[in-house]
Amino acid sequence: MTTRLSLDVMGGDNAPQIVIEGAAQILSSTPEVEFLLFGDKSVILDHLRHFPLLEKKSHIHHCSEVVTNDTKPVNAIRGLKDSSMRKAIEAVANGQADAVVSAGNTGAYMALSKIILRTLEGIDRPAISALLPTINGVCIGLDMGANLECTTENLVQFAIMGDIMAQRMLGIKSPRVGLLNVGTEEVKGHAIVQQASMLLKELPTMNYIGFIEGDDVNHGIADVIVTDGFTGNIALKTLEGAAHFIFGIIKESMSSSFFGKLSYLVGRSTFRDIKARLDPRKYNGAVFLGLRGIAVKSHGGADVVAFANAINVAFNLAKESHSLNFGEEIEAKIKEI
Amino acid sequence: MTTRLSLDVMGGDNAPQIVIEGAAQILSSTPEVEFLLFGDKSVILDHLRHFPLLEKKSHIHHCSEVVTNDTKPVNAIRGLKDSSMRKAIEAVANGQADAVVSAGNTGAYMALSKIILRTLEGIDRPAISALLPTINGVCIGLDMGANLECTTENLVQFAIMGDIMAQRMLGIKSPRVGLLNVGTEEVKGHAIVQQASMLLKELPTMNYIGFIEGDDVNHGIADVIVTDGFTGNIALKTLEGAAHFIFGIIKESMSSSFFGKLSYLVGRSTFRDIKARLDPRKYNGAVFLGLRGIAVKSHGGADVVAFANAINVAFNLAKESHSLNFGEEIEAKIKEI
Repeated sequence: MTTRLSLDVMGGDNAPQIVIEGAAQILSSTPEVEFLLFGDKSVILDHLRHFPLLEKKSHIHHCSEVVTNDTKPVNAIRGLKDSSMRKAIEAVANGQADAVVSAGNTGAYMALSKIILRTLEGIDRPAISALLPTINGVCIGLDMGANLECTTENLVQFAIMGDIMAQRMLGIKSPRVGLLNVGTEEVKGHAIVQQASMLLKELPTMNYIGFIEGDDVNHGIADVIVTDGFTGNIALKTLEGAAHFIFGIIKESMSSSFFGKLSYLVGRSTFRDIKARLDPRKYNGAVFLGLRGIAVKSHGGADVVAFANAINVAFNLAKESHSLNFGEEIEAKIKEI
Repeated sequence: MTTRLSLDVMGGDNAPQIVIEGAAQILSSTPEVEFLLFGDKSVILDHLRHFPLLEKKSHIHHCSEVVTNDTKPVNAIRGLKDSSMRKAIEAVANGQADAVVSAGNTGAYMALSKIILRTLEGIDRPAISALLPTINGVCIGLDMGANLECTTENLVQFAIMGDIMAQRMLGIKSPRVGLLNVGTEEVKGHAIVQQASMLLKELPTMNYIGFIEGDDVNHGIADVIVTDGFTGNIALKTLEGAAHFIFGIIKESMSSSFFGKLSYLVGRSTFRDIKARLDPRKYNGAVFLGLRGIAVKSHGGADVVAFANAINVAFNLAKESHSLNFGEEIEAKIKEI
């Protein structure tokens, strides 16, 4: 069965090059995919020339406008009726595409997705979910920045969405769901996380493990980590920054002595493996959860490898949804509580 | 001039051993310090036997009660009138000691410190400040967990306290002060950080650099990082966890191949340097800022090296305050705005 993915060719710091090349990369290993390319037709054609297979498997939809990083969400919604971002999302809403991917302005992308795809019944606010590396694989973190202030109900809904996501995308039968807090004891935290914790404890089908702390994020004790968008965004970026910082120190230290340099030479394949395992590009592709359609957000600064990964996330989610609709499963679960 | 430090001998997971040995370690390099030891007299004497120099430079104050990790702040205040934590703090309040150090229950320690030492004029809530490693040294982060929900005014006061702390403790003339947020653009974040940012911009003497993101924490672009206690605590612990996680992966990868092992052998002094540079024990010793007295909090799980570092933080702050009182400087600054 062919999966059709809609791409915002103009979104992101390195667009359109990364979008076209990322799509071409995916196509070389995944022939059962087709692309709907939204953006400036002449620009797209110019880039497509180098990728004849992609050209054959693509449908170009010319758009006269672009949502930039400076575009306010309200302007993306009220103005810019012919933006590549909007049109790419609309392709999912009207059934032309199975999922959409954009590396553009997060705020505008979320706002447009909410309006065009609409939120699932019982979900007050969609969340941004991302994969985070752990000692034994990956976990799902949400919300990573869509909702800076969250109610108890928002957090409970995020937990339910993350739970289903982990089951479907990570193949975990009974995902361990944790709520990020400043301590693990019941008395810790503010009223919102405490109340959310009490509600989650009462959900009979959820494997809720209680509060977890910042240093548990990578430690593989939870498959789903729930938090508000402010904390989640800062924790996610702090992780990325810490990895960058530590590798910087290692590089600096190893290159400043003879034995350090020698050690690097001897172990360079090992160092390559380590860097590959923690490569943030492998984790690119955040999912907007809680919508009646699949929308994946790539990091704005993504390169080809990273963008291809985001496309891959969209492809896998879309393929999963051919058999069982993700959104309907979430709606059914929300109704149960 | 002798500096007198008051120690809660019974606080922390590894008390009293780490407290006594940590104090003995400091004394071996810093003879101009004296200790007031609060706790069970027979236990203290039993441990002191091994450290004759410390025994000579210590005054033991027997306390019949202990604040444990399970003690609620309200019980530490209303009950437990003879706890080692309370008495150690009181020694600062009544001028017997220049600073107090405890590895005990953070909530109880902060609550008791607030009541016994009282907050500075113009400061609504004290904050926990900690040193964080950066590519070019360290920076000061606050609040690291005292105030889970903060107002705009709280954040502005934290910025002022952090600014003075960085000048006095890090010797930076005009510290770069940043406000942690989900983006650097002015429109990013919720109302509280946006309003705090506007107020900070108007402070003529502060070198306010605007919003910074999670991945900037270790990148040395700010000397003072201001945030609410919920986000700060989670960011701090996420950093610690990330370092642990990355070193775990490096160790695992290097020990799983011949060249990895060889590389480790050749570079082991370099690896030791790297681990030492990022050793979290070096950053142990969080300061309760905004009180009329110096109170330093050690990590509850601290070992001797880590606890000695917390004592050292208290010693340096106390020594600084002999010449110019920290609190008075903060009060004067707050009055200016």
